[in-house]
Amino acid sequence: MKLYDGGKAPNPRRVRVFLAEKGVEVPLVPVDMGALEHKGEAVSSRNPLQRLPVLELDDGTIITESIAICRYFDELHPEPNLFGKGALGKAMVEMWQRRMELNLMMTVANAFRHIHPAMKEWEVPQIAEWGEVNKPRAIEFLRILDGELAKREFVAGDDYSVADITGMIAVDFMKPARIQVPEDLVNVRRWHQAVSARPSAQA
Amino acid sequence: MKLYDGGKAPNPRRVRVFLAEKGVEVPLVPVDMGALEHKGEAVSSRNPLQRLPVLELDDGTIITESIAICRYFDELHPEPNLFGKGALGKAMVEMWQRRMELNLMMTVANAFRHIHPAMKEWEVPQIAEWGEVNKPRAIEFLRILDGELAKREFVAGDDYSVADITGMIAVDFMKPARIQVPEDLVNVRRWHQAVSARPSAQA
Repeated sequence: MKLYDGGKAPNPRRVRVFLAEKGVEVPLVPVDMGALEHKGEAVSSRNPLQRLPVLELDDGTIITESIAICRYFDELHPEPNLFGKGALGKAMVEMWQRRMELNLMMTVANAFRHIHPAMKEWEVPQIAEWGEVNKPRAIEFLRILDGELAKREFVAGDDYSVADITGMIAVDFMKPARIQVPEDLVNVRRWHQAVSARPSAQA
Repeated sequence: MKLYDGGKAPNPRRVRVFLAEKGVEVPLVPVDMGALEHKGEAVSSRNPLQRLPVLELDDGTIITESIAICRYFDELHPEPNLFGKGALGKAMVEMWQRRMELNLMMTVANAFRHIHPAMKEWEVPQIAEWGEVNKPRAIEFLRILDGELAKREFVAGDDYSVADITGMIAVDFMKPARIQVPEDLVNVRRWHQAVSARPSAQA
């Protein structure tokens, strides 16, 4: 199998961090998203949505969507557990992974894509007003998250999970999107520092 | 347990259709979203994100996010299978459920929320330009889906799955969003008719 990778972009990184936590190595095919290579033939023929990452199995089967790729590897390599245990544990990880993605990563992505000059060719048309609306939404969600992280170590409970991976990468994505984590969100800061110190964060 | 339900809105309906397919009955607590009751104390104290549906277990534990609630019930009642079988089957359902949600339901929702006059108090500010940009994106995705549905019966494979539930509800949501399914997408139309004819579609 091989993984079409997109370097620094948030979604490709989610899968690399997940694989690092699992201790699984997959050959990478680098795709230069800065040069818009994900819109070229190699990616388009495998994923008509022209997004990365893309996993190609040995028989040519294609799996796209970061979380679907993570779940595939989770089924093949169940330990360490990153999707939760038992009905309630799995539901909590799913709930928090989605909250981190829909309420944080997407709001940050909207701000980045609709405002940053470097995204002019990516997001057509850029609508600055829509980008600006998303910035306070990201902060508002971080405040809710801060209250939760006052009660426990990780996003979805006492154990590190895929929800922490999505969350860490969403917070890192705030930097190019030019959104600051407010100083008073001490629990978010403590958590972000802890998950960023794991070796997988370098993947 | 009890399920705080939101009537006609797409996400509450996803869970009701899922439960109908599973043959599971859960007591519903109706919440009138038209009267903005989801922003009131009953919902806000259970889900600070003020969204529905919300599942409350007998011990007071809260699960939100439609797909997290579905996954909880799937763990308790594994048959009929709606999340796929085996590593590849599960990855395919996850991939297509996400594509239906992120590329169809969300683009349709953006068009509806940012353009429809009835959404003025829900989506503040409404940005009509952003709503309009999403309409052709929904159609573009439906064209890709039509090519896939030419090759198989259901969205994620030969079996009905949660990806069909999300897809059916997203297509139904196109009506209030005033987006038409193009006449020539015969496979999408065949599939939508078939999934809508299941008794669960009435839930």
